[in-house]
Amino acid sequence: MPVNLALPAPEALLNIAGLEIGVAEAGIRKKDRKDLLVMRIADGAQVAGVFTLNRFCAAPVTVCREHLAASKGGTGIRALLVNTGNANAGTGAEGMANCRATCEALARELGIEPGQVLPFSTGVIMEQLPMDRLLGGLPNVTRAIGKHAWFDAAQAIMTTDTQPKAASRTVQVGGHAVTLTGIAKGAGMIKPNMATMLGFVATDATVSRHVLDALTQKAADRSFNSITVDGDTSTNDSFIVIATGKSAAPAITGLHTPDGKAFANALIELSIELAQAIVRDGEGATKFITIEVEGGRDEDECRKVGYAIGHSPLVKTAFFASDPNLGRILAAVGYAGIADLDQTRIDLYLDDVLVAKSGGRNPDYHEEDGQRVMQQAEITVRVVLNRGDARRTLWTCDLSHDYVSINADYRS
Amino acid sequence: MPVNLALPAPEALLNIAGLEIGVAEAGIRKKDRKDLLVMRIADGAQVAGVFTLNRFCAAPVTVCREHLAASKGGTGIRALLVNTGNANAGTGAEGMANCRATCEALARELGIEPGQVLPFSTGVIMEQLPMDRLLGGLPNVTRAIGKHAWFDAAQAIMTTDTQPKAASRTVQVGGHAVTLTGIAKGAGMIKPNMATMLGFVATDATVSRHVLDALTQKAADRSFNSITVDGDTSTNDSFIVIATGKSAAPAITGLHTPDGKAFANALIELSIELAQAIVRDGEGATKFITIEVEGGRDEDECRKVGYAIGHSPLVKTAFFASDPNLGRILAAVGYAGIADLDQTRIDLYLDDVLVAKSGGRNPDYHEEDGQRVMQQAEITVRVVLNRGDARRTLWTCDLSHDYVSINADYRS
Repeated sequence: MPVNLALPAPEALLNIAGLEIGVAEAGIRKKDRKDLLVMRIADGAQVAGVFTLNRFCAAPVTVCREHLAASKGGTGIRALLVNTGNANAGTGAEGMANCRATCEALARELGIEPGQVLPFSTGVIMEQLPMDRLLGGLPNVTRAIGKHAWFDAAQAIMTTDTQPKAASRTVQVGGHAVTLTGIAKGAGMIKPNMATMLGFVATDATVSRHVLDALTQKAADRSFNSITVDGDTSTNDSFIVIATGKSAAPAITGLHTPDGKAFANALIELSIELAQAIVRDGEGATKFITIEVEGGRDEDECRKVGYAIGHSPLVKTAFFASDPNLGRILAAVGYAGIADLDQTRIDLYLDDVLVAKSGGRNPDYHEEDGQRVMQQAEITVRVVLNRGDARRTLWTCDLSHDYVSINADYRS
Repeated sequence: MPVNLALPAPEALLNIAGLEIGVAEAGIRKKDRKDLLVMRIADGAQVAGVFTLNRFCAAPVTVCREHLAASKGGTGIRALLVNTGNANAGTGAEGMANCRATCEALARELGIEPGQVLPFSTGVIMEQLPMDRLLGGLPNVTRAIGKHAWFDAAQAIMTTDTQPKAASRTVQVGGHAVTLTGIAKGAGMIKPNMATMLGFVATDATVSRHVLDALTQKAADRSFNSITVDGDTSTNDSFIVIATGKSAAPAITGLHTPDGKAFANALIELSIELAQAIVRDGEGATKFITIEVEGGRDEDECRKVGYAIGHSPLVKTAFFASDPNLGRILAAVGYAGIADLDQTRIDLYLDDVLVAKSGGRNPDYHEEDGQRVMQQAEITVRVVLNRGDARRTLWTCDLSHDYVSINADYRS
């Protein structure tokens, strides 16, 4: 049961001019399941991507990086191909060859070059792609292009997700409406067994190359790189932003103009909504936790503290139990890796309740106040380091019996 | 149920000349439970310690560091005082004052200086010590000094441990037998809710100051700093080595002499046995996992890889389920933080089974072989990085439903 996650309404997901969607059932791992998605991109679009830092990255991540680099940073990319059921990670040279063969086959179907295809895979690690079924499904998915919409795409990339994740935004740029629509699937640090967090956002805005690159990195940093369920970074994590340039709005060539800021905010907010949806649908999640760390010397140390809290199995089980065992949070702050941290300056809030002040229990704190907040489905932990002006917000969920069940039993 | 952990036989725990033990029930958190331990150390002993790196360290850790530094590195230390039930961490200035008051009270009882006492606390975080009961128990524990032995001491420091952890060794130094006995309790990265891994080892050997300091650090590094259950570093972790110098053996003044090496090996082996006992008794543990990482450029990168595997909730739930879902191990290797890791050189073994070769599934690997190993209670994961000669061994356990239950329900 996801935490306060509404099912997206298909009609609320806005089409993006210059991008067509097709999905199909190829039976890659299971029967009767949409497991193949193609997005065809009109000529002239800009495409940017950020990928997992896992050194054991999957074959498609390596190929995506190659194709983006070779196509002058994404100018020539004309199609995305996504399969679920198999991650094509830990598959060695054969996995690389299979990935390239898949791009070649789709390129033939679409009349483009293999280097114009970006491939994505998600599913079980260390098994070779079932090439017969995958290649056999390509003509079907090619024929389906243009017949499907974003809701279908969001469904087609699901693995252990309990529901599809998608959202749209519109924003005014130079007096013209610009549309953004995105989809995501859980995994990444959440469902890494299925081995992927995937996020795809498209917009009809015209965005210059360097702005799109910078903005994609910034949006990923603020959203998908600010969530955790279990701390495992997957082999396949990918976040792609496509700007088709089909709207009538003027080109966005800088981030500091009013138009640039408006567009950036829309993209970042959309990315955060998708990233939060992944956490809300985290394996076994019963609570949605926002971790705000402020008063740090720089963002990096705020992030370290946030992740130490967000990764701590002890903190996460306390949330699951609605137990205000809040010393666990202080302990996590202490081992976050800030060498010169002064514990006597640290304050800790649970929502509006001041739990610890200057590194010790707040004399006015009553456990029933902590208990009240801990019973909520959504909780904000706020840590004030009192050593600078930097701040950072992360999102996570609790650690429940169901997390263990799902991950202990998943393959069977 | 601990994994293959024998209950120590009281008669197998050898007394150490120059060290006397007393335990008492002070009712600090629970009734009818030994929760206070004093070790009185004869004049002339050397004492060395290593402590948690957690910046939110408990008051007793700060006081231990002060007293060791002021006593010329441990030469004048005459007593250890350990309480369970309350960690005196996250307690601010009041906690520091309480800790100092406790040292002063014991010093009065024993006729020594407060600075000659090393204090240790373990238990709940962010609650003040119940000073009335703690101080009230000091006369009782002082009267008990000399009436108890190591088995009692091991029992008195238990918190959520299911059984006491203790061991002895003897080793020849210059033709004379030297004895080492140690005790430990779980926590640290294992039971950090109870907020402490504590380890105390004493020997009648005569060990020079600088050798004892170096050896204590080395032994901690090879043992207590090479285990993990859940990755949480506690606020109170402490490891103390006491050399009373009461044996007839010649002084150990270097680590590279035959005597120095023999003594060092005995201390390291004893420390490893105690550290492994903590993992075997880890919360909810059903499997004991040895992680060997070899072929690294240096020990630090081997350690990073080992901890990435040992901390991964996905790897740990797979062990709990006896599921050879071994791609999860490769993924953990990939995100361990080695920036230039070449995945195509990595081999992975499960006991004697070669699972992955050169970064991909070994063509000769059959899942039934992995399944056979996964069903064992003790399993060795071996990762060969093939980029250098360094190696490192760590120990961990699986992540079970009981871990969640224990940590979700602990305080109630």
